[in-house]
Amino acid sequence: MHRTKVRVVEDALDANNTIARANRDDFDRHGVTVLNLMSAPGAGKTTLLERAIGEPLEQIRVGVLEGDVQGSIDADRLATLHIPVTQLNTGNGFGGECHLDANMVRSALDQIPLDQLDMLIVENVGNLVCPAEFRIGEDARAMVCSLTEGEDKPLKYPLMFRACELVVINKLDLLPHLEVDLDKLLYNIDAVNPGVRTIQCSAKTGLGVDELREWLAELAHRRVRAIA
Amino acid sequence: MHRTKVRVVEDALDANNTIARANRDDFDRHGVTVLNLMSAPGAGKTTLLERAIGEPLEQIRVGVLEGDVQGSIDADRLATLHIPVTQLNTGNGFGGECHLDANMVRSALDQIPLDQLDMLIVENVGNLVCPAEFRIGEDARAMVCSLTEGEDKPLKYPLMFRACELVVINKLDLLPHLEVDLDKLLYNIDAVNPGVRTIQCSAKTGLGVDELREWLAELAHRRVRAIA
Repeated sequence: MHRTKVRVVEDALDANNTIARANRDDFDRHGVTVLNLMSAPGAGKTTLLERAIGEPLEQIRVGVLEGDVQGSIDADRLATLHIPVTQLNTGNGFGGECHLDANMVRSALDQIPLDQLDMLIVENVGNLVCPAEFRIGEDARAMVCSLTEGEDKPLKYPLMFRACELVVINKLDLLPHLEVDLDKLLYNIDAVNPGVRTIQCSAKTGLGVDELREWLAELAHRRVRAIA
Repeated sequence: MHRTKVRVVEDALDANNTIARANRDDFDRHGVTVLNLMSAPGAGKTTLLERAIGEPLEQIRVGVLEGDVQGSIDADRLATLHIPVTQLNTGNGFGGECHLDANMVRSALDQIPLDQLDMLIVENVGNLVCPAEFRIGEDARAMVCSLTEGEDKPLKYPLMFRACELVVINKLDLLPHLEVDLDKLLYNIDAVNPGVRTIQCSAKTGLGVDELREWLAELAHRRVRAIA
């Protein structure tokens, strides 16, 4: 019984990977770099994006795919930046899916103007577990970890922290008001994903936003170099 | 294809409900009131519990079942309160399950000293989506919503807010340092679950903890009255 269950899970992940590769082929054909951006609910992904791509990022044309169980609050916010934003809701069926998978992203591809983009940032559903389990055809995965969540989160949700090549620590402005040990958080991140790049940010004060913009630009250039 | 998928989901939920009823029978037989406590990661469930049940709750004997993908950090913290704490990890298989279901709780029942308890608090995996979809045989569901998560969360995760009969708003001490509108959060909670009870708390300062203790005691008495 248990074995059957594991087998079903493996089949589902195999199917997901097949569709993720098809997405990747489409992104490659259009020369679009794709970032899968993940976090717990309320860690500040949207506010960080408003800060990081609110002004043009060099010559890089950026669009966003917004994953949410329900509603279009974040997409509406980002649309005011005058960039292409596509909403993808996971709320069909029972209570809604807690993550984006390759097939959901695929179903939204015809609504994304890929030929007008150099970079697509996919804002995943707020969740520290399942989004890390499903590739969507992205070039890179990054996560936002709010300081308010406490220093133990890397140890409790290790797959998420391991899956990402960048961990943005957000809400640094709240540090004086929290009983959270930043050094311990950094230590725990490094313990589950040794050497992973971290950027300390505050979407409120702007701390670290330039560094995040540089990282995004570098990610876009990485693809250009790979092709050259 | 779509229809098949929905059918599989319905079957899974039917199976879950059957097992939840079996759990409920066992809890009833032992006269144990069960609370399913949910939240996003880092909303402060464990710290609130340390505050709320750190001192004896009238004559009510309380135990905790700790749900986590991995590790036993929270269980270790609560064990210092000298109450029965049982750890339940969901990390088998691939990246771990993002919620507790009735069968997982059932698998832990023989490790919980039900005959020594009047109330069992189940601390679910930190996630605002799937935990609300799976009954575990509980008497009541409550959630902790951290003020830091922003006022839009009820609109983005409505099932979770609708599933609960109590919404604890935590980290009120941070209000002066946040750009969050508390009135708007309360309005949004009431919009998705009209009339639902809310308690404003700060696990740090102790604000609202007495009110939460009263609510927990009332929950335990509700069962006694139902039997009498």
